[in-house]
Amino acid sequence: MEIDRSLYIEGTLHRATSGNLSVPRFFGKIALEEAVGSTLWDAYGTLPATQEIAGTNGLAVSLDFAQDIASRLNDVPKRLDSMDQSGIGYVIVSLTSPGIEGVFDKANATDLATKVNDEIYANYVQPYPDRFGFFAAVAMQDPAAAAKELERAVKDLGAKGALINGYSNIGSPANYTIQYLDDEACEPFWAKVAELNVPVYLHPRTPPVDQQVIYGNGKYPLLAQAAYGFGVETGGHALRLMVSGLFDRYPSIQIFLGHAAEALPFLVHRTDNRLSTGKSGSDGPYKKSMKYYLRNNFYATLSGIRRLSTVLNTIEEMGEDRVMFSVDYPYESDEDASDWFDYVEGLSSATKEKLAWKNAVRVLNITAGLESYQTDSEFL
Amino acid sequence: MEIDRSLYIEGTLHRATSGNLSVPRFFGKIALEEAVGSTLWDAYGTLPATQEIAGTNGLAVSLDFAQDIASRLNDVPKRLDSMDQSGIGYVIVSLTSPGIEGVFDKANATDLATKVNDEIYANYVQPYPDRFGFFAAVAMQDPAAAAKELERAVKDLGAKGALINGYSNIGSPANYTIQYLDDEACEPFWAKVAELNVPVYLHPRTPPVDQQVIYGNGKYPLLAQAAYGFGVETGGHALRLMVSGLFDRYPSIQIFLGHAAEALPFLVHRTDNRLSTGKSGSDGPYKKSMKYYLRNNFYATLSGIRRLSTVLNTIEEMGEDRVMFSVDYPYESDEDASDWFDYVEGLSSATKEKLAWKNAVRVLNITAGLESYQTDSEFL
Amino acid sequence: MEIDRSLYIEGTLHRATSGNLSVPRFFGKIALEEAVGSTLWDAYGTLPATQEIAGTNGLAVSLDFAQDIASRLNDVPKRLDSMDQSGIGYVIVSLTSPGIEGVFDKANATDLATKVNDEIYANYVQPYPDRFGFFAAVAMQDPAAAAKELERAVKDLGAKGALINGYSNIGSPANYTIQYLDDEACEPFWAKVAELNVPVYLHPRTPPVDQQVIYGNGKYPLLAQAAYGFGVETGGHALRLMVSGLFDRYPSIQIFLGHAAEALPFLVHRTDNRLSTGKSGSDGPYKKSMKYYLRNNFYATLSGIRRLSTVLNTIEEMGEDRVMFSVDYPYESDEDASDWFDYVEGLSSATKEKLAWKNAVRVLNITAGLESYQTDSEFL
Amino acid sequence: MEIDRSLYIEGTLHRATSGNLSVPRFFGKIALEEAVGSTLWDAYGTLPATQEIAGTNGLAVSLDFAQDIASRLNDVPKRLDSMDQSGIGYVIVSLTSPGIEGVFDKANATDLATKVNDEIYANYVQPYPDRFGFFAAVAMQDPAAAAKELERAVKDLGAKGALINGYSNIGSPANYTIQYLDDEACEPFWAKVAELNVPVYLHPRTPPVDQQVIYGNGKYPLLAQAAYGFGVETGGHALRLMVSGLFDRYPSIQIFLGHAAEALPFLVHRTDNRLSTGKSGSDGPYKKSMKYYLRNNFYATLSGIRRLSTVLNTIEEMGEDRVMFSVDYPYESDEDASDWFDYVEGLSSATKEKLAWKNAVRVLNITAGLESYQTDSEFL
Repeated sequence: MEIDRSLYIEGTLHRATSGNLSVPRFFGKIALEEAVGSTLWDAYGTLPATQEIAGTNGLAVSLDFAQDIASRLNDVPKRLDSMDQSGIGYVIVSLTSPGIEGVFDKANATDLATKVNDEIYANYVQPYPDRFGFFAAVAMQDPAAAAKELERAVKDLGAKGALINGYSNIGSPANYTIQYLDDEACEPFWAKVAELNVPVYLHPRTPPVDQQVIYGNGKYPLLAQAAYGFGVETGGHALRLMVSGLFDRYPSIQIFLGHAAEALPFLVHRTDNRLSTGKSGSDGPYKKSMKYYLRNNFYATLSGIRRLSTVLNTIEEMGEDRVMFSVDYPYESDEDASDWFDYVEGLSSATKEKLAWKNAVRVLNITAGLESYQTDSEFL
Repeated sequence: MEIDRSLYIEGTLHRATSGNLSVPRFFGKIALEEAVGSTLWDAYGTLPATQEIAGTNGLAVSLDFAQDIASRLNDVPKRLDSMDQSGIGYVIVSLTSPGIEGVFDKANATDLATKVNDEIYANYVQPYPDRFGFFAAVAMQDPAAAAKELERAVKDLGAKGALINGYSNIGSPANYTIQYLDDEACEPFWAKVAELNVPVYLHPRTPPVDQQVIYGNGKYPLLAQAAYGFGVETGGHALRLMVSGLFDRYPSIQIFLGHAAEALPFLVHRTDNRLSTGKSGSDGPYKKSMKYYLRNNFYATLSGIRRLSTVLNTIEEMGEDRVMFSVDYPYESDEDASDWFDYVEGLSSATKEKLAWKNAVRVLNITAGLESYQTDSEFL
Repeated sequence: MEIDRSLYIEGTLHRATSGNLSVPRFFGKIALEEAVGSTLWDAYGTLPATQEIAGTNGLAVSLDFAQDIASRLNDVPKRLDSMDQSGIGYVIVSLTSPGIEGVFDKANATDLATKVNDEIYANYVQPYPDRFGFFAAVAMQDPAAAAKELERAVKDLGAKGALINGYSNIGSPANYTIQYLDDEACEPFWAKVAELNVPVYLHPRTPPVDQQVIYGNGKYPLLAQAAYGFGVETGGHALRLMVSGLFDRYPSIQIFLGHAAEALPFLVHRTDNRLSTGKSGSDGPYKKSMKYYLRNNFYATLSGIRRLSTVLNTIEEMGEDRVMFSVDYPYESDEDASDWFDYVEGLSSATKEKLAWKNAVRVLNITAGLESYQTDSEFL
Repeated sequence: MEIDRSLYIEGTLHRATSGNLSVPRFFGKIALEEAVGSTLWDAYGTLPATQEIAGTNGLAVSLDFAQDIASRLNDVPKRLDSMDQSGIGYVIVSLTSPGIEGVFDKANATDLATKVNDEIYANYVQPYPDRFGFFAAVAMQDPAAAAKELERAVKDLGAKGALINGYSNIGSPANYTIQYLDDEACEPFWAKVAELNVPVYLHPRTPPVDQQVIYGNGKYPLLAQAAYGFGVETGGHALRLMVSGLFDRYPSIQIFLGHAAEALPFLVHRTDNRLSTGKSGSDGPYKKSMKYYLRNNFYATLSGIRRLSTVLNTIEEMGEDRVMFSVDYPYESDEDASDWFDYVEGLSSATKEKLAWKNAVRVLNITAGLESYQTDSEFL
């Protein structure tokens, strides 16, 4: 751990600056939105992962960026090395967006989910049980099958829950519909989630092409979509779940949202104010306020977030026990996320410990032996 | 002004509670997103205002709410009385959403804009110059005409700028396209805005019906759209303006965004991080970061916002000189907005003065004689 | 519990203001710095409580204030009624300042401590076990006896710890010395505290008269002393404990400080910076930073504090698990403290629960059956 | 200016960490509590500066520290170099503590003040008018003479105001009294301050030896005094000024306090609450609340402060227009203060500009040509 100790040496003050500040490394961090690729992808005739990865589907990322991502998606030693450099002790991996949700054929999707879960288990969890856990892929094209696969992944492979990339494609590329998670067809899946008592990570996905028009004007495909558009579409998806009464039917269900809960902390009070003008019961069978659901049924991860005031807003709406560090590797850098988090002022040490690993350990029942990590410094 | 003076009477402490806290009224507030109706509407064969007002287009608002809105849109004495009750000294009014933007016929739209501006001037500004100013309506269906009308409204009627409700309909109800403000066709308008040096208030509007599907599942038309969906669509619209290079061509242009800048403060740092992965120049001719534009070319109003942590996040990204109180009357209540603002702790008195009226006076050159209002209390 | 429910009634918004805001009452709060008097006082020939109560020793309080205090110190029904009005469920009482510390005769002090503890137990704890606990009085004039009495009070009377009012007078009124708690003579007491594993509340006391000159210029005895002078003297006393190495010898000892830890959160980082310029070991046998001790060996109560930004500063230095609601009744009003706390924005519900009662229940092992109180509102 | 530009190079993310973060240097900062020595000192037979410099009077600082201070007090090139390294463009210097206040002989004090002001002008201001200004030394032992010298220094030497180190010694070392600034004898001085319309910086000084006992237990002279004790004694001194009615007699007088206004922001609301229990008029002729005076008659500098939450608390009580960067060189390091300030998150750029130089330029009418410094980064 690197501490700027010069201040503690007898009788000296810093009298020169290198324009740098030492980051007091916070070890044992846990990250939860970390993507992996799959060798099984091409065989199923679906969109190869590299085309629809966040920010690239029809958008102009640099070749360097795309190649860097592609190389890191499946390189385990490189991933571990990056974690070690950054003080990240344990990571929950999941299949990268668009994941199973982008597979048009229902049977393919179901089969692929099973194989992907086995592959992730074999490549990450089994060989490195004290470094990796995973969120299972599930084929929501067939919710009953998804429920079954979730149960298998949790009970047989030790999955910590499921990760779902937004809406699912139902049909074929030429003729498909979109299914969101509040669709009645998904009920068997949610019943199983409640029964297994595991969380579901709701992750963004590129909106359907014909709905990208809002943020793309045809002339410049906007990378901004990857940060703003996809994020807020996921926030809207979360609101659909709340309004659908899901959390009244199953009060124990917990949903993880990345990117500081996709701006919901910033806006949720307004959503409640507007909803109050409606005819009771006319816009969904929900019974409580959106703020209530946000702080009882949701957790926020800080994937992609490197701004103190955004984190403070999130903590104030949801409570610090429901906010967790994450990165979104390899689309974000472990190093940048950690340097920012480990240094940032404005959060108490106790708060940082919770965000760094304590909350995740409690919520996901992680037993990877992180207790030996230094948390509170005698000098900080 | 009501102050809880009992604490300052010799030798007493409160020894009973009524469960209420006195609000120390802050007089002379200025509000900027305050909607009015128009008697001219029906004559133009467009969507009557009451159908597409925020939250009602196809959504299930209560009849009471709709009738209350409808009655207040055009009732000047009732509006003034509400302002007086709430310590709001001066208001900038504008034609309610969807405004001119929802008028399909270009000639109608242009003609209507002119007549609406004259009507607002005659009903609000001329009779009450120390209580009302206005933002002009402009028909972006014909940007050159819009530029001309903006100039007339500013120079002849003293308009403080323009208010535009999102995208404009180009065509007919059966066959139309949507034009956002970064469209090249809008250039003459922006050149005029820069020349006149007045702000443009970019206000939400119900997204096109076929794009409402994201937030409405067909079963329950979501009122949440009015708070979340419409808002974030407006934030996306602002990002389009930034990415289009508008503020590089015209560094002086200022855009007002309501609802605490539509969550941009929460997300803007992430947008910058994602944009950095792109091929330089491939996603727009912009030259600076989104954060830079947000704090140099935008102002945030607090219409609909009643949450301290949201305000703090906004102030931290944009600076307190660029944040201003507003209500969104009659869709929100002057009284609720004022009770919340006047009481809220966590903002210095100096900050509150700026948000309440000082920033607006400076930016909009308001000379309504508000200086006599009490700002700093000797006891608070 | 009073919630402003009108916002949730179908289709209405507030359209009038009474200049008041409803306080959403937070039930089951616990308060820890609540003073009681004693009928035993006069018999021991010491300073009567009413002369040296905070703010009155040589200072000009109003007669009304002094009489109100005097009446409330011993009136149990009036105290309970005030608690009920304010949503305070459980209170830890203690003998009012200057307490035993102001008794000059060592034998008297020791004897008085024992009798006061029995009296408090008989009048508060025994008849109302689900409303009152207490911190024991101890005579630090004889630390070995104090240790013995603390043990008796904890084991036989269920005392939750001790409350000590600053320095102790050793000697006689005409000829005395002052003993602070880092004096070597106090070691037996601290060993016992560590053994019993109970906290010690370090409470302010009027500084010795000849040290009041800093804040009193002879012309105007400053009431400001009661807020600023006494408080910062207590903060200094806490720093003495840290520097003396007490928490290195006994890492488990926990000290409670009122008034948001007496400004230590605001200044502690500076104290560490200044200490780093010294010759290691020359100013005390302490081994860690003052910040470390503050967050590992101290708890802050919010007695007398009604300011969000002060609370935020305190939480950031110490963590929200180490901050607790309190009042300082009867010198402060339960009603004012509760109205402020229950309403204040800027703290998450989860944080408020911890400050209100969760932290105290955990730290003091309170089993008063508060679980039935409503904590999280479905509408807030 | 060092910006971490790698994020903006096409298509890359950081994939390694050095454990350091680049500080984006903020140029043109102004610092106001910067001490210089004087060659005249020894000749006047007073306490040599090096003995009573903060933290050394009877306290065990390291020899290295003391020598480093001594060398820097009078070395102008070294001081300028440090400023250049740290992005500090302009500094207001003043004679180091205990300054003139520590000179026992009234005639000596008065004479020394004049000579010190001429010396500072000749060594700092005259040769480097775009780098240095100064606060005049004044001999409060003779307030009428102090008023005269202040006027001379302001009008003839361009002094920006006066800096006074706490109380003054009146008499001889063997037999002296202490005079605080609210003493009636000081009235002629305050009248002149109001007339000249310049601020007075109220700086800490080691409390009189016999009042150090609070923080020194005789065994370990506490360096903590230099941070906590001296600071809070200065806060108490400021409260005396408020309570004395000085700001009612002269509403325009402005006092600068270092160290984030010596914890007054943290405690001032409590001081007001306690004062309200008194007999009106019995504790001073003041007419307003302490909070009112703090935000109308005081400015806070951040000398010695490197903690975001302390700064936020200060800004919330006083407003960001009344808070200014400072260092306390050479007792603190320009480099540490600047690295912290330039990097810290949680303050908007606009706020940082004000703290860094805008407020000081306005309040002290500084015309040193700092406008060319880059303030807002296009990338930050």
